[in-house]
Amino acid sequence: MFKTIEWKNNQVVLIDQRKLPTEETYLTCKSWQEVAEAIKVMVVRGAPAIGVTAAMGVALGALSIKAANFEQFEKELAHICNELHLTRPTAVNLDWALKRMQRHLAGLKDKSIETIQNSLIQEAQVICNEDVQLNRQMGANGQTLLENGDRVLTHCNAGALATAGFGTALGVIYAAAEAGKQISVLADETRPFLQGARLTAWELHQNGIPVTLITDNMAGWMMKKGEVNKVIVGADRIAANGDTANKIGTYNVAILAQKHGIPFYVAAPLSTIDLETATGEGIPIEERTPLEVTHIQEKRISPEGVPVRNPAFDVTPAELVTAIITEKGVARPPFSDSLKKLFK
Amino acid sequence: MFKTIEWKNNQVVLIDQRKLPTEETYLTCKSWQEVAEAIKVMVVRGAPAIGVTAAMGVALGALSIKAANFEQFEKELAHICNELHLTRPTAVNLDWALKRMQRHLAGLKDKSIETIQNSLIQEAQVICNEDVQLNRQMGANGQTLLENGDRVLTHCNAGALATAGFGTALGVIYAAAEAGKQISVLADETRPFLQGARLTAWELHQNGIPVTLITDNMAGWMMKKGEVNKVIVGADRIAANGDTANKIGTYNVAILAQKHGIPFYVAAPLSTIDLETATGEGIPIEERTPLEVTHIQEKRISPEGVPVRNPAFDVTPAELVTAIITEKGVARPPFSDSLKKLFK
Repeated sequence: MFKTIEWKNNQVVLIDQRKLPTEETYLTCKSWQEVAEAIKVMVVRGAPAIGVTAAMGVALGALSIKAANFEQFEKELAHICNELHLTRPTAVNLDWALKRMQRHLAGLKDKSIETIQNSLIQEAQVICNEDVQLNRQMGANGQTLLENGDRVLTHCNAGALATAGFGTALGVIYAAAEAGKQISVLADETRPFLQGARLTAWELHQNGIPVTLITDNMAGWMMKKGEVNKVIVGADRIAANGDTANKIGTYNVAILAQKHGIPFYVAAPLSTIDLETATGEGIPIEERTPLEVTHIQEKRISPEGVPVRNPAFDVTPAELVTAIITEKGVARPPFSDSLKKLFK
Repeated sequence: MFKTIEWKNNQVVLIDQRKLPTEETYLTCKSWQEVAEAIKVMVVRGAPAIGVTAAMGVALGALSIKAANFEQFEKELAHICNELHLTRPTAVNLDWALKRMQRHLAGLKDKSIETIQNSLIQEAQVICNEDVQLNRQMGANGQTLLENGDRVLTHCNAGALATAGFGTALGVIYAAAEAGKQISVLADETRPFLQGARLTAWELHQNGIPVTLITDNMAGWMMKKGEVNKVIVGADRIAANGDTANKIGTYNVAILAQKHGIPFYVAAPLSTIDLETATGEGIPIEERTPLEVTHIQEKRISPEGVPVRNPAFDVTPAELVTAIITEKGVARPPFSDSLKKLFK
């Protein structure tokens, strides 16, 4: 089975998600700058995976620092964290991981530079392993919401490829399958980057979960025809009130689910919940290059000179969310109470 | 300016819509079989354009018939009409045009074969010219619904390329622009065939109408952000109660429009209204080849072995439609009354 992110011989090895599903190749990052670039161009994507990769980027950065003392080391690491922070604005797991690495450093004040470096490398790997464990826990919590025979629609990729392993939304499906339930999945292809067609279809198929691919605009019709009875998606940032930023198109799906009386679940770790952001209004939405819309696999599909929009995310208001599945339990509305309780 | 469909030297010349926007090339059909194939593989598409092209296909077929008498001629033409009928099931304009050509033939019983052939060629051209005229009339009727500054979202292509010229949904926009109103358009790219990205963006840009391209799954977010205040789409078949079959994804857009309190207009000629089909339940929905979903411009985007769905159309229930714009006037709910009145 593929590994999404791996620390190997003091390098960070990433499955190149731009090349899937036609090529399974791996990119080796030797410096924190290469990690930053890999996040920016979406070699790796998915909020939890971005967090884990950034932590490993910090570890690579730590290895490269030639500092005479702790203060200098801390300052240089802060600079590296700041650069990594700038790679992508929406996923809060990125910040969460960077802050955790900096907090870890703060506890190593009296240690030698070599010890600090080793400890940061270790911490990045702890974050990576924890991510898989908490996804399994999230799966265990979430799979109770699924029944034998469910036909689940998902959008984008919130699977093993979006995390250090197992996945969030798809983790819930894997856990239900492990519990002996027959679950089939309808995967939105998820334009413009096609994470659904390229990644979700690929990993579900590899894992033996029956999956059927549709274009994003077929979702409503499939719901109308009774071919979907639950929706599960991941998240890039959840505000304190439950407003959920996720891949562009998630808001469409949530409205369609509401219209057809279909439950709409979000699966995400606590590191995706940002209690410091009150509502979705406060979540920055990344607008990516027009080339993702005007071209598919480097071939132009739209006329020269026509402007395009490319917001990478949208915000689904809390009132469209049935429940939020986390490693600490399933939160129900009102989310302003239930999310806070998860952190206690 | 391009011509979508043209009768020229006893041949049918079609702009090849599969090649737009990167290449503007024309396909010349010398036989009715070539016309049938062109409709099937979507060299030409759009309900009114399919109707006009089919009529020209019948004229080409008439030219090829070597019959000793009227009865034999009629029988052979019926066979040709039947074959053309089988090319695509959803657009009712196809049947409408075939029936009109056969009715025209029925009035030529006592004429020579040569006269019959010439008369059928003429009738096909009359249908073609009428289409442009009624689109202009539809535009005049519909543009009264648009105001200066409107930001109109459209799905698929219901423009000059979907008709013999001027267009239905886009015709309304062209008419509003001709009336001096500033209208800007947000075009859904319309997967899988990308009629929005390839055709709508292209023809609006050519005609100087400001157009911005989005992926289908951005529509809800754009509405939420106030970047859309009206929706206009075309139709492939409208049932007697107003249920509207149109390009897959139209149903999504209609639900999103309702959720955001945005009017949802359908523009279509009377030849698209099928009073013999009571409701949307009776409209056959074409399921096209999986290759349209699994590949874009011949490059595979999804994993081998993963099944896909590809319904080419969906049905928007009448209760989501604000008004239906036709060449005979604008029909309002209840459509079971208002549509019938248009035919009087």
